[in-house]
This record gives sequence, structure tokens and C-alpha cells, in this order.
Amino acid sequence: MINRLVENIKRTGAPIVVGLDPMLDYIPEHVKENAFEEFGETLEGAAEAVWQFNKEIVDKTCDLIPAVKPQIAMYEQFGLPGLAVFKRTVEYCQEKGLVVIGDIKRGDIGSTSAAYAAGHIGKVQVGSKSYIPFGEDFITVNPYLGSDGVNPFLKVCREEKKGMFILVKTSNPSSGEFQDQLIDGRPLYELVGEKVDAWGREAMGDTYSYVGAVVGATYPEMGKVLRRIMPKAYILVPGYGAQGGKGKDLVHFFNEDGLGAIVNSSRGIIAAYKQEKYADFGAEHFGDASRAAVRDMVSDIKGALENR
Amino acid sequence: MINRLVENIKRTGAPIVVGLDPMLDYIPEHVKENAFEEFGETLEGAAEAVWQFNKEIVDKTCDLIPAVKPQIAMYEQFGLPGLAVFKRTVEYCQEKGLVVIGDIKRGDIGSTSAAYAAGHIGKVQVGSKSYIPFGEDFITVNPYLGSDGVNPFLKVCREEKKGMFILVKTSNPSSGEFQDQLIDGRPLYELVGEKVDAWGREAMGDTYSYVGAVVGATYPEMGKVLRRIMPKAYILVPGYGAQGGKGKDLVHFFNEDGLGAIVNSSRGIIAAYKQEKYADFGAEHFGDASRAAVRDMVSDIKGALENR
Repeated sequence: MINRLVENIKRTGAPIVVGLDPMLDYIPEHVKENAFEEFGETLEGAAEAVWQFNKEIVDKTCDLIPAVKPQIAMYEQFGLPGLAVFKRTVEYCQEKGLVVIGDIKRGDIGSTSAAYAAGHIGKVQVGSKSYIPFGEDFITVNPYLGSDGVNPFLKVCREEKKGMFILVKTSNPSSGEFQDQLIDGRPLYELVGEKVDAWGREAMGDTYSYVGAVVGATYPEMGKVLRRIMPKAYILVPGYGAQGGKGKDLVHFFNEDGLGAIVNSSRGIIAAYKQEKYADFGAEHFGDASRAAVRDMVSDIKGALENR
Repeated sequence: MINRLVENIKRTGAPIVVGLDPMLDYIPEHVKENAFEEFGETLEGAAEAVWQFNKEIVDKTCDLIPAVKPQIAMYEQFGLPGLAVFKRTVEYCQEKGLVVIGDIKRGDIGSTSAAYAAGHIGKVQVGSKSYIPFGEDFITVNPYLGSDGVNPFLKVCREEKKGMFILVKTSNPSSGEFQDQLIDGRPLYELVGEKVDAWGREAMGDTYSYVGAVVGATYPEMGKVLRRIMPKAYILVPGYGAQGGKGKDLVHFFNEDGLGAIVNSSRGIIAAYKQEKYADFGAEHFGDASRAAVRDMVSDIKGALENR
């Protein structure tokens, strides 16, 4: 799947991923009204609004982008109907040729991580039959429990040729509280980065590993160091746009070949119609606003890469 | 909810929690056969088997125990039907008067943690109405992202009088890989423990905080130190029984008042009928085997506490 991600990025020329993190506040009133008319102000109604919103954005951007990253929390908050729409979104995006990164940040002890791996990137056995429960292409994984929490994911990545991005240095303001603590003079995130490199070498695609890393756009200097520590890891970079990261901050996350990083934007793309810059589209044409925002984001990053 | 957990523990005299982590391998053949007969070898069939298994164990143990801890991964692996049974299990256990600890180990950046908090221990707003999506009483939380990943959970704990247990030192063999790294001569888990203490003081119940900690039974010496660092935190102790922890290892997790810790056993209770010790019950009477295993576990821990 890492090979397909790299192919998709080369084909579109867009090292970006659209974060499908649909808070109800981002969804235009007319979409919510239609959904509530059919299903009432219920969890089913909220889930339907999310689905209609996602579908329009995917339809309007899928030819420009290699991948999407649905954040499962935004679906899980609407209970079972929300999770049904998570699954429907995964399947729809795959039909459109997109690589789907499930942002699930799971991680537990061995047998439990194995269950998460089966559920999200693998298969589960029921008697003589096997099923694909959620079927993402990549997932995000939390490393706090160490190798035996990560190995079950690694095993399934190898078996199914799927991938994962392990949290190394997250984009949020307080990520340093634990991640930046110095161990023999070096921050914890570097140790985690070294582990990502080691785990990743056991699961190589053609040029990059099935095992990538999450490093926030908001910490470009750390990205530079981590790029060196994990040369074979694709870096998933959140924090662009709404969280403050800019194109010029991102160049060090990429390798010399212009590959090696994929930059996420969620609110900046899916709620673009709410920004002054794209206000002319109006809420009615929110999908077109997202399309314009994708084009602008790609230009920003490409421009920065050309000028580095 | 921490007050009710303490009350339940005092009433039952059992500082234990039964981990409802139903792998299909643990479920007796006759239960699976009945479920597959009705629903086929499908995700629905697997979920039904899990439900029947859980219900029998809860019915046979609920008068002896204060709480249960369903591990959501074991349900999530069966997709939407699995998660429906997770929810049904939460509700059924609450009807039986049990406190439900959702072992979900979520944790993300602020707005995403807020969505998880709403979904699992809070309410979600849909238009003018609000809903309780999963409705656990406590959850487990991963601290790797720092305070701004934890604060949204803390906010909901205060609003809803719910609780959480934050991963400090996990029970698995490789937990030390990151958690034991020394920072100015002190292990990372102690820093996390200090944070748990600080977060917890902002959300106090009558004698203990809404904010507890997870510390593995497999590391009793570390439990002793952490007990001192977080005097107001209830400690959820996994790793008893199948993972190797014994009653005498557990005494230091408790305060002088005999409170302050709740010990989890999953496989050791729910799959007790598979152990030689309880084999006489037979697979047909697996619930009675679980009841006997609960009684033995309580005796083991009480005996150790009396002899300390």
C-alpha cells in the first residue's frame, strides 16, 4: 500500500492528504437541514449530514489528491450510526481510487493491538469465514506501550501489505510535555523515531517502508532531524493551515527526491467555504471551495519545495 | 462516579474488576454454535456469541464485583455488530448496578480528544437534542500527547461526574522501552504520574479523584513509588493472573485504608472454565467457573492485604 500511496502522489503531483474530520459546525446548514428532515435531529441524522458532506468534498477533490484521512473520533462521537458512516466513507474513497489513512491512534498490549489491527487493516476470522471489518489502507498508531504494542500492527501490515504511521512528534502545543523530555541529552521523540526506523526496515515497500511516522508541521526543526533519523519512513505531517504550519515550514520533511512526506489539512480544506478567501463560493458550493483550497495548498507546498 | 466506584468496592469487599475481553477462543463451543445457527458465521454471529458469553458471566458474578472493564478492541474487531454489542454490554452492566470502565485508551489533540470524550463519557449535541453515544462511566486514556490531549477528557469528567484512568506504567513486557527512560535521573512514568496527580486535583470526588492511573501488576516496585506520587488517584491494575501478577505483588498499590486500587483480571475470570483448577464445572457451566474464580481472586487479594 505504501507503493500505491507513492504512485498516487506522483500521479497527482500533490503530496497532500485531506482530513475528513467533519465536525457538525463545519457542515453547511442546508446539508444538515436535509439530513435532519429525513432522519430527525438524531445520531442517524448527524451521521447522514456527515456522509453527504464527505461525499461532496470527495467528489469535488478526488482527481486532485492521492489520499484522505478520516479522523475516527469525529464519527465515533455519533455512536454506531457515526461509525457506520466512517466505514461507508472508507469504502467510497477507495472506490474513487484514494488511499485511506484511518486516523485512529490505537495502541495497546499485544493481544489487544492484534484485535485493533485485525479490525482496521486486517481480517477477522469467524468460524470458517473471514471478514474485513473497517478496511482502511493505513492507520495511525500510538507507541507509548513500546514494541509489543506495535508488533501486532507490523505483522498485519506485512501480511496484508497495509501501512501505519506511528506518532513520533505530534502537532499540538503541549506535545513537548512528554515527547521532548531529554534522555541522555536527546529528546524522547528521537528515540521513538529510531524505533520507527527499526520497525520499518522489517516491512519495506519498493522505496519506502510500510511504517511511517507522524511529525507535526508546527515543529519544522524537529522534522529536519527526524527526516534524517528515519530515511525510509513516509512522514504524515498534520498541523498545516489552521494549526499554523506553512509551506516553507514543510520542506525539511521531504527527501531530496521530493517524496517522503504527505501533508494533512482538515479544516483548511473541508471548511474552506467559511474562510474569507473562499467566501465567494458560498455555503451552497462548499465542495468547489474545498477544490480551490486543495489547489492553493498544492501550489504553496510545491512552490516551497521548488525554492528550497 | 469515583464515589460510586468506592461505594461499590466497599459494599462488595472486592477491589477487583472483571475484564470483559471476549476473544472468540474463550467462548465455549455451544455458545458459538447457537449464535452461528441463528446468524451464520458472520460478524453478527460473532457479536451474538460475545453477547451471550458476556451476559452469562455478568449474571453469575454481578453480586460479587463492583465493576467491569470491557476492552473495546475485542468488540471493534467485529466491526459495527461488535461495537453494537459493546454498547449493549455497557448498558446491561449498568442496569445490574456495575460501574463500567471502557478500556478504550484514546488520546489525541484537543478537538479530537473532545470528540472521544463526548462519545464515550459525555453527550453529543445534534441540533437541539443531545445524545449519549456509548455512555461508559470511566474510560482509559493515553497521555502521549500531553495536557492538551487530556484536558478535554478532564472537562467532561467534571461536567458529567465521570472518570478516567490514564496510562502511566503499562503491564506489558516492553512497556519500559519508552516509559522507563530516565529524565534527569527519573523515569518517564513518574513524570506522567505527577501529571496525573496534578490533573486529578482539579477533579476531586469525596476522597479520591475522578482521575486515576493505570499501573501494571507486573511492576510492583514501581507501583509502590507511584502510589506515593499520586495519593488521590485510584490505580487500575491490569496484569493479575494470566499476565503473571499475584496477590502479594499488589499490596503496595493500595493505600493504608485498603482502598485506592482496583485489580483487573480478564482471561483468568472469563475463561476460568478452561483452567485445570475449574475444569470440573465444564464448558456448559462456564459462568459458575467464572464465579468461583472471582471468589478465589478476592480471597487472594484480601489475604495479601491482611498480611501486609
